Amino acid sequence: MAAFSLRDARPDDLGDIVRLVRALAEYEKLLHEAVGTEDDFRDALFGPNPRLFCTLAELGGRAVGQAIWFYNFSTFTGRHGIYLEDIFVEPEHRGLGIGEAFFRNLAARAVAEGCTRVEWQVLDWNEPAIRFYRKIGARGMDEWRVQRLSGEALAAVAASA
Amino acid sequence: MAAFSLRDARPDDLGDIVRLVRALAEYEKLLHEAVGTEDDFRDALFGPNPRLFCTLAELGGRAVGQAIWFYNFSTFTGRHGIYLEDIFVEPEHRGLGIGEAFFRNLAARAVAEGCTRVEWQVLDWNEPAIRFYRKIGARGMDEWRVQRLSGEALAAVAASA
Repeated sequence: MAAFSLRDARPDDLGDIVRLVRALAEYEKLLHEAVGTEDDFRDALFGPNPRLFCTLAELGGRAVGQAIWFYNFSTFTGRHGIYLEDIFVEPEHRGLGIGEAFFRNLAARAVAEGCTRVEWQVLDWNEPAIRFYRKIGARGMDEWRVQRLSGEALAAVAASA
Repeated sequence: MAAFSLRDARPDDLGDIVRLVRALAEYEKLLHEAVGTEDDFRDALFGPNPRLFCTLAELGGRAVGQAIWFYNFSTFTGRHGIYLEDIFVEPEHRGLGIGEAFFRNLAARAVAEGCTRVEWQVLDWNEPAIRFYRKIGARGMDEWRVQRLSGEALAAVAASA
């Protein structure tokens, strides 16, 4: 089996990071929505107090996948958690266990840092993914619905402040 | 109508912050799960590079509600968003518009900081809350389900890394 490795992203990975974000968007047929630039990701990932983090998977010296994550928080436990915003592996490099390795890597980081949980979202019809998440012991928070205020509605609420 | 005001929390508010977190937990009949201490919140809210934020509502010089939030991120837009983790207003001070004021305050902050969205979660059976969220223009991301790895399952995945 081809050997891959995971490592924290560095500023010279910005080209790969944006390429992989756009590859995920293309896979989801949402490439027109992926407008983030290298400058946007530089600010978020590599500024003085970053609030965003990226772990890359390398295979043969090339970035073939990434996990992009940040810290969330549980007010009941008083501890941070890790929230996995995006995980992507290039289609031609699937089946090597890279996706699972990202989950193990983030779980190990969470435990090492005293975080009480790792969370992410899945589309409710993505049964293969949900089966995998149950297999590793993740629980579906199925009563909860994410609410999003954006675009003109966000501007309108902001203007009423 | 009683006049309230919103302001950023300060270190000398830690007692009120934990009191209001525990009041929310009690309201949800989950007080036994609310184990976070003032030290936990001091570390998260008032350390050198905080990744958690708290906005307090004051009425008559007393903290009567709070919003606890952090920055999330949209990889497609390349911008941060604001994620509202907890919002609570003491039952005896509801109906004054404090909850709506927290949403306006966070929306204004998001717009001012170039964030593309404000997000939060609601229980799927909480119809009065969902009606309010639709009224202010929030969209339900109803196809998505949050997955959570915690406790022994988190430790097991971490140990396999």
